[in-house]
Amino acid sequence: MTDLPERVELLTDLYELTMAASYFDNKMADPATFSLFIRKYPPNRGYFVAAGLEDALDYIANFHFSETDLAYLDSTDTFSDDFLHYLENMRFTGGIRALAEGEIFFRDEPILEVTGPIIEAQVLETLVINTMNLQSMIATKAARCVHAAAGRRLVDFSLRRTHGIDAGLKVARNSYIAGFAATSNVLAGKLYGIPISGTMAHSYISSFGDEIEAFRAFARSFPKKTVLLIDTYDTLAGAQKAAVIGQEMAKKGGKLLGVRLDSGDMTRLSQEVRNILDEAGLRETEIFASSSFDEYKIARMINDGAKIDAFGVGTKMGVSADAPYFDIVYKLVQYGERPIMKRSTGKVNLAGKKQVFRKTDSQGRFIEDVIGTSDETVEGATPLLEPVLQDGKPLKPPPTLEEIRQHFAKSFQALGEAYKVLEGPPSYPVKLSPRLSVVQKAASS
Amino acid sequence: MTDLPERVELLTDLYELTMAASYFDNKMADPATFSLFIRKYPPNRGYFVAAGLEDALDYIANFHFSETDLAYLDSTDTFSDDFLHYLENMRFTGGIRALAEGEIFFRDEPILEVTGPIIEAQVLETLVINTMNLQSMIATKAARCVHAAAGRRLVDFSLRRTHGIDAGLKVARNSYIAGFAATSNVLAGKLYGIPISGTMAHSYISSFGDEIEAFRAFARSFPKKTVLLIDTYDTLAGAQKAAVIGQEMAKKGGKLLGVRLDSGDMTRLSQEVRNILDEAGLRETEIFASSSFDEYKIARMINDGAKIDAFGVGTKMGVSADAPYFDIVYKLVQYGERPIMKRSTGKVNLAGKKQVFRKTDSQGRFIEDVIGTSDETVEGATPLLEPVLQDGKPLKPPPTLEEIRQHFAKSFQALGEAYKVLEGPPSYPVKLSPRLSVVQKAASS
Repeated sequence: MTDLPERVELLTDLYELTMAASYFDNKMADPATFSLFIRKYPPNRGYFVAAGLEDALDYIANFHFSETDLAYLDSTDTFSDDFLHYLENMRFTGGIRALAEGEIFFRDEPILEVTGPIIEAQVLETLVINTMNLQSMIATKAARCVHAAAGRRLVDFSLRRTHGIDAGLKVARNSYIAGFAATSNVLAGKLYGIPISGTMAHSYISSFGDEIEAFRAFARSFPKKTVLLIDTYDTLAGAQKAAVIGQEMAKKGGKLLGVRLDSGDMTRLSQEVRNILDEAGLRETEIFASSSFDEYKIARMINDGAKIDAFGVGTKMGVSADAPYFDIVYKLVQYGERPIMKRSTGKVNLAGKKQVFRKTDSQGRFIEDVIGTSDETVEGATPLLEPVLQDGKPLKPPPTLEEIRQHFAKSFQALGEAYKVLEGPPSYPVKLSPRLSVVQKAASS
Repeated sequence: MTDLPERVELLTDLYELTMAASYFDNKMADPATFSLFIRKYPPNRGYFVAAGLEDALDYIANFHFSETDLAYLDSTDTFSDDFLHYLENMRFTGGIRALAEGEIFFRDEPILEVTGPIIEAQVLETLVINTMNLQSMIATKAARCVHAAAGRRLVDFSLRRTHGIDAGLKVARNSYIAGFAATSNVLAGKLYGIPISGTMAHSYISSFGDEIEAFRAFARSFPKKTVLLIDTYDTLAGAQKAAVIGQEMAKKGGKLLGVRLDSGDMTRLSQEVRNILDEAGLRETEIFASSSFDEYKIARMINDGAKIDAFGVGTKMGVSADAPYFDIVYKLVQYGERPIMKRSTGKVNLAGKKQVFRKTDSQGRFIEDVIGTSDETVEGATPLLEPVLQDGKPLKPPPTLEEIRQHFAKSFQALGEAYKVLEGPPSYPVKLSPRLSVVQKAASS
């Protein structure tokens, strides 16, 4: 049972619809272009990971108001019958150019641009921002964790404290895109095909009362998939008992996959537990750690010499705790032939339809980006925004999750190490093309 | 279109199911009690608002695995046929005692306690935490905003940057519980009956090019519901134009409801805009402000003398930016006759089935709370946990949203002002009853 909505067209700010009604009354139907971009870097961010496009396109390609949506709008005593009748048949008939999911991008660069009759393009604003903000924010946070882990495996443990059900699924999806190995989220496994992982909580150990009996019972139920949680009473005593179980499993031809630490000074404990396991001949039994991990704590513990093979990364990644939102906006940049610049204090945007050009060296490593107009070419640079939807229809099936994951891995590898530091990264060079600069001068005069 | 799941039983951490499988193998079916509580206060929090119970109970009362869920679990090669067959028919058959939605509570106090056969009670963990964490966190954040606004109206503007679709709806619901007047979220209006609010964005003004023509067109479309956004070019010039429109509307028997500020030094601007409107005879036209508001900025601007009648409160409330998660846990506290205490470093919990008792003065104002055992009475104190579900069935229909909103308002009014300060609140006095202390000694020995 869930009260999640079947359709999400009304998941929009009311002003999208009141503006649309006024455009309708004033017969304004010229093509408009809206650009989605991030205005500034949150603390310690120097790059972003584009994500959420598949969901956004799915939503846009199927956009239509249901009968009950229209009945509700009618009940608000706000809209004319003519306008409601117009909404009944409204579909998105325009086009979208976007960065590939998994692509690295920077401040001010369009993540996607929507072009279509102004009403149709306007009403997409809220859900496009919502979808792309959450997924890009999580993919970015997860990329930082993967980078900090320097090759060690990460598992998404965040479901219990993500902001709701939708976020729980999207965090699993986007942490996987960024290189996490698995998730604890079973529904994400079912829906997205992501590997799932998990064994036991403290309540399991407590319910038995006797720790080694709990371990033994679990190993009996899961002879091939046992990771023992060893900190319920005393971590080192727990490790000794786990070693006994590991030897028992080995005698039966099985194998203790790992032990999990969840509290205390995990750097020191991991070293001592490693010794206990090694001395018991369990060199292949891995040490798994969880409890308040994020990129900062992972980096610190690895630096301190922790003997940890894999990390469960939960709440702080799942809510992007040090940057729980991006300053992401969806701005009108062109209406008809006229480039548009918003000039409110501190909130200027780049006018005109744009393209992002990336310059790379002979090994494919990023050198710099140039934001230009949508119709120019920049020599020696690759345009990144590609048409993904035209006349309201997707141009091709979305890439698979594995393809997106590979796209991210390749793009991230090409980004210089200097920009990946966890604290105080430098600004990646992003210039405006001469042509786009001319557009800005024209739009601001 | 949405890829949100129809059913959420698999929205659980895998370990809930592996533990359940091991309990099943070991024929462990004694009644267990799990307690949901918050272990510590996030920065600047000194109270919490209980929320999310309606959704949690709806989920629990309808809990069952679907055929496709079971087929997926089978495909993971983790579970025995016997266990999967058991899951096919599993329902929650136990009971739940909980705080009313909208109730104020404190650290370590159970928000709800679930008692039932251990497997049934264990598998509810992830979604119960997820639901109650999000909703209580938002209700708490929104309560702080309402308190800071000191009687001025607040509108939820957060949808575009909430963590996904589910969060967008739950933020609207819980900010309304805490006293917000309305939301911009149209679907929340449809689903929950919350008043909706909103008029125009900068893109609307920009698309016309001429600001006063945009204002005039909007007033024509919405003669009874116009709030004009006046900062697209120059706020004071925008206010002058809005005053002209207000006078035009008045001549036709209409009324300009308000103007909205969205950038710049809004304290000073609000004072100058107030003068402009008053001099034009538009004393009833309100000033509405938005842009990065949270409880801190609201309090600061009111303190500085801003002339603002209502605030649009968005992202920072909708993601609870200064405390984007609670340290909320669901812990086994009793198994059979045995009270259980987890003793991992720094993560101790109170053992045993509990009750929260609240002592109030003759005017109903809170004096102190006592956490006791579930079967005791504390003289002169009101027990707060009430049975809400028994033998797997809800005991009564949930209260309406208006009733929950009133419950919150009454509970919040009874909390002393000292505990409501926005920064560095003192600790509200919460004691353990002598009987509960005895249980702790027994469980820790």
